[in-house]
Amino acid sequence: MAVGECSFPKIHPVKGVKLGTSCAGIKQTDRDDLTIIEIDTGSVSTAVFTQNSFAAAPIKIARKNLSKANPRWLLINSGNANAGNGNQGIDDALSCCQSLADLVSGQLEQVLPFSTGVIGEALPMVKMVDALPSALHSLSEAGWKNAAEAIMTTDTHPKGASLRLDLDGFPVVITGICKGAGMIHPNMATMLSFIATDASIDRKILDKCLRLAVDQSFNCISVDGDTSTNDACMLIATGFSDAPEIAHKNTLHEKFMDGLQWICNQLAEAIVRDGEGATKLMKVVVTQAANDREARNVASAVVQSPLVKTALFAADPNWGRILAAIGRAGVDGLDVSKVSIWLDDVCIVDNGQRAADYSEQDGQAVMAKDEVMVRIALGRGTSEQRMLGCDLSYDYVRINAEYRT
Amino acid sequence: MAVGECSFPKIHPVKGVKLGTSCAGIKQTDRDDLTIIEIDTGSVSTAVFTQNSFAAAPIKIARKNLSKANPRWLLINSGNANAGNGNQGIDDALSCCQSLADLVSGQLEQVLPFSTGVIGEALPMVKMVDALPSALHSLSEAGWKNAAEAIMTTDTHPKGASLRLDLDGFPVVITGICKGAGMIHPNMATMLSFIATDASIDRKILDKCLRLAVDQSFNCISVDGDTSTNDACMLIATGFSDAPEIAHKNTLHEKFMDGLQWICNQLAEAIVRDGEGATKLMKVVVTQAANDREARNVASAVVQSPLVKTALFAADPNWGRILAAIGRAGVDGLDVSKVSIWLDDVCIVDNGQRAADYSEQDGQAVMAKDEVMVRIALGRGTSEQRMLGCDLSYDYVRINAEYRT
Repeated sequence: MAVGECSFPKIHPVKGVKLGTSCAGIKQTDRDDLTIIEIDTGSVSTAVFTQNSFAAAPIKIARKNLSKANPRWLLINSGNANAGNGNQGIDDALSCCQSLADLVSGQLEQVLPFSTGVIGEALPMVKMVDALPSALHSLSEAGWKNAAEAIMTTDTHPKGASLRLDLDGFPVVITGICKGAGMIHPNMATMLSFIATDASIDRKILDKCLRLAVDQSFNCISVDGDTSTNDACMLIATGFSDAPEIAHKNTLHEKFMDGLQWICNQLAEAIVRDGEGATKLMKVVVTQAANDREARNVASAVVQSPLVKTALFAADPNWGRILAAIGRAGVDGLDVSKVSIWLDDVCIVDNGQRAADYSEQDGQAVMAKDEVMVRIALGRGTSEQRMLGCDLSYDYVRINAEYRT
Repeated sequence: MAVGECSFPKIHPVKGVKLGTSCAGIKQTDRDDLTIIEIDTGSVSTAVFTQNSFAAAPIKIARKNLSKANPRWLLINSGNANAGNGNQGIDDALSCCQSLADLVSGQLEQVLPFSTGVIGEALPMVKMVDALPSALHSLSEAGWKNAAEAIMTTDTHPKGASLRLDLDGFPVVITGICKGAGMIHPNMATMLSFIATDASIDRKILDKCLRLAVDQSFNCISVDGDTSTNDACMLIATGFSDAPEIAHKNTLHEKFMDGLQWICNQLAEAIVRDGEGATKLMKVVVTQAANDREARNVASAVVQSPLVKTALFAADPNWGRILAAIGRAGVDGLDVSKVSIWLDDVCIVDNGQRAADYSEQDGQAVMAKDEVMVRIALGRGTSEQRMLGCDLSYDYVRINAEYRT
């Protein structure tokens, strides 16, 4: 079950990027689980990876290869994370990449591996390698939706976002897909995202754009506070658009950045909406913080609180739990008499205490909605932060208690 | 449902401390919810309080009064936290304390208020005040169990611990009760604990002993990562024992400290065992950390991880989740190839990868137990930390989704 609209959007293909999928039968045999993304020569790519110390084997290799060359092929599997497998994991991932390189007459370092799924089980090498030709055969610029489906694990539906910009009269497209539903938390999570644009842009600028966009999107969502060993978000620019090259501090750069941020926001929100067991979406907006860090800490404490999340699940305007979460967010010298809280437009706490005209019915009416905004004004400064989360339901427990059985 | 043994222990009364209870009908009318603890003159007391910025009204008053005088009466109610009520909350708490002071001909600052329950609802003053005489009437040195019951909220059973020490041939008793089941997390939680001893001890030393004992007991447990506005742990020394006064750095001090630590450990463990929805107890022991802080961070990340907790609920030895939690604990420069993990005596991860002789059956056998020890060796130093947690079950969600309805 996902919160709200979850149909796959109309996709603008990106010239220079083809996607193909096949069924390797890694965990299930009735769905595609292997994806190849082929990137045209001349493209530039950048990525951000998990900050988890136990980075999975594919992450280590992708990071290394990306530092050496612009990738030509991404090899992605779901159903097995190839994490916690030590040297064997590295050997296996390299071996898969080599097999693909051989088939396409490419170099090993031009292939980046990505894996998502169960940790600590060996990658089924024969199945993986056997499935490569069929995935290659299906490569197509129209393959985005198939790829979005093939990278899913506990996701209930494929996730994508796509837009077409006008840069100086020329069209530029940005299109992305992602997966992720549990182990979702700031600083990357069990998520993979692949975004491509036909814009012409320097690799360093591209990298900076991606880091900015991820910081305010994928790093501002939380399903359960756990982060994963395999997270990666990749951005490819093929340069096929006729639009002028995007350079620093011109209007093209700004327009492109806005577009990329929108795509990342859409994808990040899609992940939370499909959060494991989620029945409601919670937008936490912290304002009037003294600095960005405390804004983020308060938003994070509220969006992660199991008690706030269960209250949301129960549609219970139990604002004491919000207040308690703010109180433990480690804000130095917080003057609680300046803190106000709203549920959508209903003021529930006014300067540290229950708002005079607040009624339980008003709070209840907001909490009964599918999407609830919790707005918190700290009365300390001008920094703001927005974070997205979801409720904690019986289904979250069921999904994660039954994951491997 | 609580994990393991939960019968109330045999209590050694503490001369100089009497406890009385009555039913004020604050939330329910079929149980006692108001408790008075009367402390003899000449006693010394100390306490630690919540670090939550939104400290409740009673906490603010108790903190202030304790700094002025040694308390003679503790006034405790369950069913209403008197938190988030602004100035009204302060006035109400003071008014209750004054009513009690009037009845016993004491001073206002000799009364400390404690409240636990729902946040943001006004204290029912008439009910509270009306119930005072009956609680006073029942004051008795044998009242510990009744008090342990009257301070309960979502607890499924009363919690106590008691022991008798021999100090230089003279008996000294330490006896305590506590409540708490949800909103439980390091740095105090929705818990109240009242501990008394008949030892003779200087107030400053008593305070130091309490802080040490709490740091390694109540501050090392986690049910859901939320901390509360009302936590307090109070330690009273009446000095009625014939044992010599406890002074710094003599053997009496060490023996007393050991005893107090044991009492706090027992009480803290009882809280986790009765964690909301808990079906299993998890002891996380981190060893070979470079320093105490990182040992605590790793233990905390594992014991809090919703994915580890749901795996525990499902008796699933999903060690990838433990590994991922360690990986996100923020240990700088962690060399994962030196990390090993055991479930009880079963080595599951040996130097960063799945142990060669590990079998799923062995892991499963441990996870099927009511109590599971997760031992983590970081291979970096000699610091250690132990934390207690519980699983995340359907019942946690049910209890917290239905709390107010």
